[in-house]
Amino acid sequence: MPIGIVGLGLIGGSLAWDLRSLGWEVLAVSRRPEICEMAIARRIANSAGVDFSLLAAADVVFVCTPISAMVTVVKRLIPHLSPRTIVTDVGSVKTPVVEAITPMWENFVGGHPMAGTEDSGLEAAQRQLFAGRPYVLTPVEATPARSVQTLSEIARSLQSQVYHCNPTEHDRAVAWISHLPAIVSAGLIDACTSEADAAILKLAQQLASSGFRDTSRVGGGNPELGTMMARYNREELRRSLQQYRQSLDRLIAYIDREDWAALSQKLEQTQQARKQFNC
Amino acid sequence: MPIGIVGLGLIGGSLAWDLRSLGWEVLAVSRRPEICEMAIARRIANSAGVDFSLLAAADVVFVCTPISAMVTVVKRLIPHLSPRTIVTDVGSVKTPVVEAITPMWENFVGGHPMAGTEDSGLEAAQRQLFAGRPYVLTPVEATPARSVQTLSEIARSLQSQVYHCNPTEHDRAVAWISHLPAIVSAGLIDACTSEADAAILKLAQQLASSGFRDTSRVGGGNPELGTMMARYNREELRRSLQQYRQSLDRLIAYIDREDWAALSQKLEQTQQARKQFNC
Repeated sequence: MPIGIVGLGLIGGSLAWDLRSLGWEVLAVSRRPEICEMAIARRIANSAGVDFSLLAAADVVFVCTPISAMVTVVKRLIPHLSPRTIVTDVGSVKTPVVEAITPMWENFVGGHPMAGTEDSGLEAAQRQLFAGRPYVLTPVEATPARSVQTLSEIARSLQSQVYHCNPTEHDRAVAWISHLPAIVSAGLIDACTSEADAAILKLAQQLASSGFRDTSRVGGGNPELGTMMARYNREELRRSLQQYRQSLDRLIAYIDREDWAALSQKLEQTQQARKQFNC
Repeated sequence: MPIGIVGLGLIGGSLAWDLRSLGWEVLAVSRRPEICEMAIARRIANSAGVDFSLLAAADVVFVCTPISAMVTVVKRLIPHLSPRTIVTDVGSVKTPVVEAITPMWENFVGGHPMAGTEDSGLEAAQRQLFAGRPYVLTPVEATPARSVQTLSEIARSLQSQVYHCNPTEHDRAVAWISHLPAIVSAGLIDACTSEADAAILKLAQQLASSGFRDTSRVGGGNPELGTMMARYNREELRRSLQQYRQSLDRLIAYIDREDWAALSQKLEQTQQARKQFNC
């Protein structure tokens, strides 16, 4: 079963590499000829080129471009496919992708392999990137069950933990655990650097250790990625931010009125609640 | 030069262990006889007991109790000391400690070795805990310069990076990089777990990965420690929280009005700003 990959960045490249290693014939398309050459030279793909016609033989195509390019890519891809070809994507927001692509290609299954590194591009691609990580599939009513089944098997062959939910459930859940933390964390960096006393700011920079490092990490991440997440998952992110602001205001109120019993109780709750998260 | 340690928890125990290993005679006091026995058995201290009279020979005494106990401890300690004995502490907030103890003991130097682990107690004590970590000393005008000098040398012998500043500067800086992150992070856990749809909450818990893990870590920490920090550094923490709320509201406003250029620019700033922090 030939598998197509469109977009040879970190995710597309790592997927291609694993799938080829597992014995599939991997056909890859990238806009850049030098990336195609690198993919072949490094045995990441069996064949690679800039033309979508390369994917005519593929039974499954993974669209691994940025979300903003997906609709355009699928439009250009469709004329080359047989009707039974399964198309899937790897975008980190699902509702806008699924809503845009399903009317164009019925055999589309939204997907989100939840793995990554700080780096990007084919140079950063690695084997086993998805092993032990969640791989979410977001079929809708019209999605052929057999296609969901095929993709689940592929994801499990990558040693991913496969989850099925609808696009809205996915987007709401990742707003909580991925997009909200990014904004909360960016706000922390922004607030700290707003310190007007240069000597205090310098001291804070010198004294910062693991607490600041961890809490600020995702807020110091890729700005384009952060903006894209906010843009495509805006409604769910806003919902989570409103709730966050209420939680924050409650904590501030405890401190304002020196209600240390209430603060302590809340911190006991958060300590316990965190243990329920699978990380 | 005999060195006294009061309180054999993680910090006191680790300090004692390092100092003894460096050749100092270490005299330790703990409320609990079994902890004194353990300190001697493990060669963490040369002698240990429950009575402050043990510290009569000490040239320097490190008070390593929780902040809430420090004033009581120093009051009970003073009758046993010679006037030239240097007293210092290891509390993570400095203004209330320095203001309370300086009038009682002129030869007092506030200190904050900025190291720790998730664990507590003498069982968790370890060698080299302070190596490569900041050790802040917070002398005031009345503090004898020679005492500051002596403590700086001891801290450097632990391979710590020694910083000097006044108590207010310390408390403001640690509010930014330690106490504010704890509240911001606790708010994140609280908000996520407020999700009313049990299926979404469960999915979020299953999908949570490194982003949530890091951003929520300090908010899931020791509740008593978090409450104590807020209690003793309340004014500076409130100041940083007000600033944080402004930063957060600005980010929310960008998302509300879909100003992606402004959001992207802010995230570029936070990405750059984070690099200035020494962590």
